[in-house]
Amino acid sequence: MSDVWGNAVKLSIFGESHGPAIGVVLDGIEPGVRLDMEEIRRQMARRAPGQRLSTPRKEADEVQILSGVRDGLTCGTSICAMIANTNTRSADYERTAALLRPSHADYTGHIKYKGFEDFRGGGHFSGRITAPIVFAGAVCQQILRERLGVVAGSHILQLYKAGEGAFEDEDLTEETLDKLSHRRIPTLRADLESQIEAIIESARMSLDSVGGIVETAFLNLPAGLGDPFFDSMESRISHLLFSVPAVKGVSFGSGFGFAKMKGSEANDPFYLDDGAVRTRSNHNGGILGGITSGMPLVFQTVIKPTASIARPQQTVNLTAMKEETLSITGRHDPCIVLRAIPVLEAMGAIAIYDAWRSDSFGLTPETSRNENG
Amino acid sequence: MSDVWGNAVKLSIFGESHGPAIGVVLDGIEPGVRLDMEEIRRQMARRAPGQRLSTPRKEADEVQILSGVRDGLTCGTSICAMIANTNTRSADYERTAALLRPSHADYTGHIKYKGFEDFRGGGHFSGRITAPIVFAGAVCQQILRERLGVVAGSHILQLYKAGEGAFEDEDLTEETLDKLSHRRIPTLRADLESQIEAIIESARMSLDSVGGIVETAFLNLPAGLGDPFFDSMESRISHLLFSVPAVKGVSFGSGFGFAKMKGSEANDPFYLDDGAVRTRSNHNGGILGGITSGMPLVFQTVIKPTASIARPQQTVNLTAMKEETLSITGRHDPCIVLRAIPVLEAMGAIAIYDAWRSDSFGLTPETSRNENG
Amino acid sequence: MSDVWGNAVKLSIFGESHGPAIGVVLDGIEPGVRLDMEEIRRQMARRAPGQRLSTPRKEADEVQILSGVRDGLTCGTSICAMIANTNTRSADYERTAALLRPSHADYTGHIKYKGFEDFRGGGHFSGRITAPIVFAGAVCQQILRERLGVVAGSHILQLYKAGEGAFEDEDLTEETLDKLSHRRIPTLRADLESQIEAIIESARMSLDSVGGIVETAFLNLPAGLGDPFFDSMESRISHLLFSVPAVKGVSFGSGFGFAKMKGSEANDPFYLDDGAVRTRSNHNGGILGGITSGMPLVFQTVIKPTASIARPQQTVNLTAMKEETLSITGRHDPCIVLRAIPVLEAMGAIAIYDAWRSDSFGLTPETSRNENG
Amino acid sequence: MSDVWGNAVKLSIFGESHGPAIGVVLDGIEPGVRLDMEEIRRQMARRAPGQRLSTPRKEADEVQILSGVRDGLTCGTSICAMIANTNTRSADYERTAALLRPSHADYTGHIKYKGFEDFRGGGHFSGRITAPIVFAGAVCQQILRERLGVVAGSHILQLYKAGEGAFEDEDLTEETLDKLSHRRIPTLRADLESQIEAIIESARMSLDSVGGIVETAFLNLPAGLGDPFFDSMESRISHLLFSVPAVKGVSFGSGFGFAKMKGSEANDPFYLDDGAVRTRSNHNGGILGGITSGMPLVFQTVIKPTASIARPQQTVNLTAMKEETLSITGRHDPCIVLRAIPVLEAMGAIAIYDAWRSDSFGLTPETSRNENG
Repeated sequence: MSDVWGNAVKLSIFGESHGPAIGVVLDGIEPGVRLDMEEIRRQMARRAPGQRLSTPRKEADEVQILSGVRDGLTCGTSICAMIANTNTRSADYERTAALLRPSHADYTGHIKYKGFEDFRGGGHFSGRITAPIVFAGAVCQQILRERLGVVAGSHILQLYKAGEGAFEDEDLTEETLDKLSHRRIPTLRADLESQIEAIIESARMSLDSVGGIVETAFLNLPAGLGDPFFDSMESRISHLLFSVPAVKGVSFGSGFGFAKMKGSEANDPFYLDDGAVRTRSNHNGGILGGITSGMPLVFQTVIKPTASIARPQQTVNLTAMKEETLSITGRHDPCIVLRAIPVLEAMGAIAIYDAWRSDSFGLTPETSRNENG
Repeated sequence: MSDVWGNAVKLSIFGESHGPAIGVVLDGIEPGVRLDMEEIRRQMARRAPGQRLSTPRKEADEVQILSGVRDGLTCGTSICAMIANTNTRSADYERTAALLRPSHADYTGHIKYKGFEDFRGGGHFSGRITAPIVFAGAVCQQILRERLGVVAGSHILQLYKAGEGAFEDEDLTEETLDKLSHRRIPTLRADLESQIEAIIESARMSLDSVGGIVETAFLNLPAGLGDPFFDSMESRISHLLFSVPAVKGVSFGSGFGFAKMKGSEANDPFYLDDGAVRTRSNHNGGILGGITSGMPLVFQTVIKPTASIARPQQTVNLTAMKEETLSITGRHDPCIVLRAIPVLEAMGAIAIYDAWRSDSFGLTPETSRNENG
Repeated sequence: MSDVWGNAVKLSIFGESHGPAIGVVLDGIEPGVRLDMEEIRRQMARRAPGQRLSTPRKEADEVQILSGVRDGLTCGTSICAMIANTNTRSADYERTAALLRPSHADYTGHIKYKGFEDFRGGGHFSGRITAPIVFAGAVCQQILRERLGVVAGSHILQLYKAGEGAFEDEDLTEETLDKLSHRRIPTLRADLESQIEAIIESARMSLDSVGGIVETAFLNLPAGLGDPFFDSMESRISHLLFSVPAVKGVSFGSGFGFAKMKGSEANDPFYLDDGAVRTRSNHNGGILGGITSGMPLVFQTVIKPTASIARPQQTVNLTAMKEETLSITGRHDPCIVLRAIPVLEAMGAIAIYDAWRSDSFGLTPETSRNENG
Repeated sequence: MSDVWGNAVKLSIFGESHGPAIGVVLDGIEPGVRLDMEEIRRQMARRAPGQRLSTPRKEADEVQILSGVRDGLTCGTSICAMIANTNTRSADYERTAALLRPSHADYTGHIKYKGFEDFRGGGHFSGRITAPIVFAGAVCQQILRERLGVVAGSHILQLYKAGEGAFEDEDLTEETLDKLSHRRIPTLRADLESQIEAIIESARMSLDSVGGIVETAFLNLPAGLGDPFFDSMESRISHLLFSVPAVKGVSFGSGFGFAKMKGSEANDPFYLDDGAVRTRSNHNGGILGGITSGMPLVFQTVIKPTASIARPQQTVNLTAMKEETLSITGRHDPCIVLRAIPVLEAMGAIAIYDAWRSDSFGLTPETSRNENG
C-alpha cells in the first residue's frame, strides 16, 4: 500500500538509494502533451544533490522515459520515468549498518521489513526517492500551466533563526512567483538570502544541520476543485507532503496562526471583483470546505533538520544489542530545505492535477478556466 | 471520490445536516468484537451539540446500527451506523440561502455542485457529519485498546490567547490520558480551564468566535505500523484530519518547532530500556520514516474560529450578484475546539487501526504487541 | 475490502438478510438529476420476491433515501438508500444454523468470519443484498439514458433444457430491448416463454431448482469508454457480476463460442456507415482492447440453480462435527434467473457509468455522444 | 485508472510494444523471500515469442530487477521489473498505421487517446505487456507454494475443433498439475496433443488463426480467502483475466454448464474427511459466496483467435476515411493459446496472493494452512 497514490492520476514509485535505479510510473496523464524536457530537467536540477550549499554527492539524475511517450508527445498510457543510480558509495554505509541513525527510519524500517530492508543510504526511505516525484510534478505543472494558467512559487518563511513574513497579497503575482522559482535561495526580503547562506555554512562547519519552513503558493486555480471531507484539497496535498520523512507539519492559509484569531478577524469577506466572487483577505489559503475558492492556494511545510549529522550521537547497535556512539560519515547535506522546495511544489501540482482530473461533474478543461470569472 | 476513505478499513460517510439522516458504513472491522455501546455513546456525547459552552441545538445523536452487528457482536461484514436528524430548523437557513457565509463552503460548494447542493445548515459540509466519524473511531479505538493496549488522550495547547506547553514525558501515562479524555475542558495546567471558559463565554457575548490548537497522544502502539512514503502514518492521519473543514494545520512531534532547531537538538538518541529500543527524546512524535517507533504518537491540530458568527459580515448575494451585509442567526457554537477533540481522537484511532490491519507482512495481533519489547 | 467498489462512482453496500436494514451508499452521482422514482421502483419490483414464479416471501422493498437528494434532485453528494427488513422469519433458519447448506456460503462464511457471521437467511451473502444494487443501477441507467441515449435489455438464452439463439443484429433495437425489459419472462422466441414457465413450475413441484443463462445488451454507448488492461470494460463488468454468489460465468460477444472459430470468421470487419466507423459483425460484443467500440455491448451471464432446495441433502453439522441430512424449509425460489435480470442490467449500467465518469481525458458529457458518429 | 490493480498487493504496468521497455511495479511482496530466478525465467519462457508453433519474433525477455531486491532477497518495498524491447521492427507497422486492424484495439485506442496512442505493434495493447505479469505471477506463486503448498496447472479444454473433458477429481493432484505446467501443449488426453499441433500448423498455412479454452486449477488453497460481494475470488480473478484483450469469457467450476443442471445435481454435498470439511463434488470450483472452500479452485478462460491474420480483410483507412483492404504482414502467432497459459496462471496466482494478504482478520501465514484440516 505504500508506493501507490492517487485517483485520476496514479503514481507508483520504486527504488532504493543504492539499488540499480529509482523511478515512478505515472498513470492518467492525458495524450498529446509535448513534454517540456528542458523545464523538467530544470526542476530536477533544483532538487539534485551536488549543488553548492548541499551534499557533494553528484548524480546526473538524468531521467529516462521508458513508456507512455512517443516522439516527445504523451500517448495517454502510463509513463515510466527511471533514474539510474550511478554514483553510490555503499561502503560508507556498510560500516554503520547495525548502528541505528537517530531521526532516520533505520529502526522502524528494520522492524517493518524484518531486517531485510535495503539499509544502504536509507534505501527506500532515502530522499533520493523524491527525484521521480519532481519529474511527475513537472509534468502535471506543465499541463496545469498550459491548460489553466496555473503558476507556482515558494519562499523560505523560516530557516533556523532567520525568517520573514508570509506571502502578502502583493507578492502573489505570476511574476514574483516565477522569479522565486528560479532562485537558489528564494526569499521575499533581499537581506534574508545572505543570512540563510551563513546559517547553512555555519551548520556545515559545526558538523550540524538546520531545518526550516517553506511557504508555497499556486495562482490561477479555478474554483471548485477538490472534494468535501475525504479528499479535500488539504487532505490530498498533505497526504503527499507527509510522504517525505523530513516533513513534520503542514498548514494552509493562516495555519496555526488561526489559534489566536477571532472569527471576526479570521473570516474572509466575499466581494465582487468585476463580476467574479473573491474574498478580501485569504486566511483560508484558497480552500473552503476542502474545495478551491479561486483565491491563491497557499500552504506551509516544515522540514526538520537533516537527520544525518557528523557529530557523535548516542544510539543502539542492533546486532550487539548494546548502546554505542555513532559518527556518521559520508556525504550529507547540512540543510535540505532548499532542495526540498521543488519537491513540495511538485507534490502540490500533482495533488491539484489529480483533483482537477478526478472531477467527474463536468468541470471540463474547456470550461473550468472561465468558472473563475 | 469524496466520501470513501481507507485501505484495510473503509469508511463511507453520507448525509446532510438537514436531510433525513447522516451516517457511515464501516467496512473491515473484524468479527467477534462485543461493541462497548456505553463507551461509544460517551464519545459521541463529547462531540454532541447542546452542551454548556456550545450550540443550543440539541440532537439526541442516538446511533442506530443497521448492519454488521448481531446480538452485540460484530459479524465481520460492513457496519452501517445511522443518526436520524430530528431537530432541524431549516427556516433559519432558508432566509440566508443566497448570501454566502464567509469562511464556510457556501461558495465553493455552489460552484462544485452547480447550485444543487443542500445548503441548509451547511448540508454535507456541516460539522454534523463528524458524528458518525466519532462512532467509527470509538469502534477502532476499542479494538486497539483491547488488542494492543492503546490509550488516547488530548489537551488544549492553545485557545485564543490562553495556552500551555506541549505534552511532557511525564504527562504521557495511561492514567493522565484517560483523565483528560473524561474532562470537558482537558488541560494539563489546572488554571487554564477557567481561562478557557472565560474566553469562550466572552466570545459568545461579543457575538464572535475563537479557535485553538489541540494536542493528541496515543500510547502503546507497536513499532512497525505504517508505510514509507505514500501512506506514511503522518499521511494517513493528516488525510483524515484535514477532512474537517475547520482544520487548517496538522503537525507531529515538535512540528513547526523543528524549524528553529539544529539537528543535534532535534535528533532523538536511541537507547536500550530493558531490552527494548527506545528514544530518549521524542521530537519525531513516535513516527520515523512514516512508521511508528513504539514511542508515543503525538500530533497537533489547529481548529480555526467557528465560521458562523452573529456579527454583521460583508458578503455577496449570489442570486442578485451584488454585495450585501449578512447577519447569521441560528444556533452556533462560539468555539468548536472542545467538541472537535473526540473527532480528532477518532480520526487518529481510525488511521492507526487501518495501518495495523493493512499490514500484510505478518505483524499479527498476537505478535505485534511483543515486537515492541 | 469486500463492500466497496468503483472509481469515479463508489458503491458501499451493507446489510444482512435478517438484520434491521440493507442498503447502499452511492458516491459520485452528479448534481441536478431529478430521480425517476417510478422507474426506480419498477426496476426494484422486477427483482423483488413475492412475484408469481418466485419465493412467497414478500418485502415491500421500499427504498428510503437518507442523503444526497433534496426536493427530488441529486445534490452531488453521496446518496444513501436504505431498505428496511420487515418480513423476516428467522425461526426458519435458526433450526438449521449448524447444518451447512450445500452450494451456499455457510461454510466459507463460517471460516472467514470465525463463527460470528450472521447466518440467518444467508446474512450478508443473501441475494437480498442485490436490492440496493438495483437502486444504484437504476440511477446510473437513468443518467446514461438521459445524457447518452443508452438503452438496455436482456433475454433468457438458456433455462435448463430450453433455450434460444443469441441476439441477432435485428434484435438490437431500442424498441425490442425496451419491450424485453418490461416482460416478466423476456425471450426473443414467443414459444419459449411457456416452456420456461413449465420448467420452473416443474422444478418447484419436484422440490428442486433450475438455473440459466441471461444475455444482456446496451445500445448507443459512445466509442472510447473503458481502459486498456486493468479496468477494461470486461474487467469492470465482470468484477461486478461475479459479486453475486450465483454467477459462475461471464462472457462477452461470441464468448466461449470463440474457441471454435477461426480468426477469419471471428474478426469483425470495419466499414463506414455514413461517416461513422462501424463493424459488420459484432463478435467482440462492442468491446475491443477493453474499450467500447460504439457497437452494442453484449454479455452473457450464467446463474447457477438456486442453492436452497427442499430435497434432503447430505451435509455436515458443524457443531456436532458429524455428517447429517438437511431438509431446507422456508421460502425459496425454484429459479432466480428472472429476478436476477434487473440485477445484471443494473451492474452493467453501474460499470458503464463508472467508466464514463472515470474518463479524465475530456470525453465530456457534451461531446461524448457525438464522438460516435 | 487503467494500469494499476490490487489491494494488499499492487501492480502497476507500463510499456508499449515498440517503446524502450515494458515492465511492472509490484508492491506488497513480503520481505525476506529469496526469488527463484530460474523458475521465473522458466515461466517467462513459456510465454515468450519465438518458440515453435508461435511467432518468429524473438525477444530475450530478460527481466532486469530495478528495485526491491537486494542480494536475491526481497526487501519488502516495491519491486520494479523491466524488460527492454530489443527486437522491434516498427517498419512493419508503420505501413499500416492508418488502416484499422479488425478485432484489435486500433480504433478504440485511437478514439480514447485522440490519435496520440503508440500504434506500433499494438502499443500498450500489445500482448507483450503480459510478460511482466508473468514475472509478477511467478513471484506470487513461489510464495504461495512455499507458504501454503499451493500448486497450479492448466490443460487445453478446447482448441478449435479439438477438445477434451474438464478436470476430473483424479487429475487434480500435485503431480499431474506439475507435469502439465512443464509441457508445451498441456492436455490430459495424450492423442489431443498432436491434433492441436496439426490445427495450429494448418491455421498458419492457411494464413488464419485459432483460439481455444484453457482450464486452470489451483490446489491446496486454505478455506476462507476472498470476500463476499465485491472482491469475491471470482471478481478478483476475472478482473485480472479480462485485462487481456483476447480473453472474452471466464467461468468457474461447472461454469456455463450450470445452466442445464438442476439444483439437486449442481449442489456439492458436504462431508467429513478425517475431520476436515470437504465437498463430494466440486461444481462450484472451490469458491462459495466468493470465498475459497478449500476444494481445488478451477476456472476456464476462452481466448479468441489471434486477431492478426495475413488474409486480406475489409477495413477502414482512418486518414483517408474510406474503406480499404488490409493485408497484415509482420510476425504473428496463429494461436496464442499456448503462450497465454502462463499468463492465466500468473493472474490466478496474483489474485489469490492478493486475497490472502488482504485478509485482515488474522488468517495469518502461520495459521492459515491448518484451517483447512
